[in-house]
Amino acid sequence: MPQPIEFFFDFSSPYGYLASRKIDEIGARYGREVLWKPILLGAVFKLTGSQPLVQVPMKSDYVARDFARFARLLGVEFKMPENFPFSSIHAVRSFWWAEGQNPKLAHDLGQHLLNTAFSGKDIASAHAVAAAATEIGIDSAALLAGIESQEVKDRTRRESDAAIARGIFGSPYIVIDGEPFWGADRLHQVEKWLEAGGW
Amino acid sequence: MPQPIEFFFDFSSPYGYLASRKIDEIGARYGREVLWKPILLGAVFKLTGSQPLVQVPMKSDYVARDFARFARLLGVEFKMPENFPFSSIHAVRSFWWAEGQNPKLAHDLGQHLLNTAFSGKDIASAHAVAAAATEIGIDSAALLAGIESQEVKDRTRRESDAAIARGIFGSPYIVIDGEPFWGADRLHQVEKWLEAGGW
Repeated sequence: MPQPIEFFFDFSSPYGYLASRKIDEIGARYGREVLWKPILLGAVFKLTGSQPLVQVPMKSDYVARDFARFARLLGVEFKMPENFPFSSIHAVRSFWWAEGQNPKLAHDLGQHLLNTAFSGKDIASAHAVAAAATEIGIDSAALLAGIESQEVKDRTRRESDAAIARGIFGSPYIVIDGEPFWGADRLHQVEKWLEAGGW
Repeated sequence: MPQPIEFFFDFSSPYGYLASRKIDEIGARYGREVLWKPILLGAVFKLTGSQPLVQVPMKSDYVARDFARFARLLGVEFKMPENFPFSSIHAVRSFWWAEGQNPKLAHDLGQHLLNTAFSGKDIASAHAVAAAATEIGIDSAALLAGIESQEVKDRTRRESDAAIARGIFGSPYIVIDGEPFWGADRLHQVEKWLEAGGW
């Protein structure tokens, strides 16, 4: 069995959202499972001295144009959340809470939260995350209790620390058999790598 | 006649070098001239708070691996200069000096200086730039005098200011009919844009 593809993303990352809409079908095309792993870029940005692209002088106009243009190219819906960038801590905790019960459920929740955020809606608060989760049949009271548990907080911290220790510094960040690819604009290289087994 | 493609790059940018090896053939495929425009990213980085990727914690290892991997994918030679990042002021001035005489000569000098730098050799000093220029038949004494002239210094400053005023913040940065594309990993989008006339 080939190793799964690891798909690291931040819920507040437009490029992470764009990649999320394609990575599963790319994996399926090459017989690979895709493991979704949400990260908290805020912690990474402190280490790298980075800031969200939309806040960087000169780059902000470019990326706003590019998000929409890239989405059109991929054929996916895209609308920036009014509140941006937003804290994704509740979204990440809800993902790891769901993952503790059922990895498939966590995946579906992850995709739904990204889709919700980049259809322009809020997923920053625990309440907003829970409201979105009910739309795919998740019990909101269970989710709200779950993300406050120490177990889920610890899991979130552990996954975040592990990603940083492995040098994951951006979103999306895709790892195939140990080979890292950073950025939505590398999806075609990801495909080539899967097809050719490297170059 | 279609508008020329504008190709902005920094002589000290590995991704700029990689794009330089492909942009002319992409332009030719779609009947477009390519105007090469070297910029000084140092001035931009002061405005954007950026720093060279090779100096950013966590990112430096990734980009070192990626430069070489990307070069293999494009099928071009690649070796990092020992001294990196280096000042490209003399390279840029020599480009605009040559351009004042003959745009084709400037293009060829630009490509040769990039090829020299990313075959691992020094092009930081005026002497090193002149030595490389003689390899394509340019008179080194004329170049050394030219890049010290006020006219060439002014032209360099004017081009740099104009690029910044237009929001050019990275290397490579490619503009097609007003549409900007940042990064060597956008070459396939550049091709698609040229082929389809936008999307």
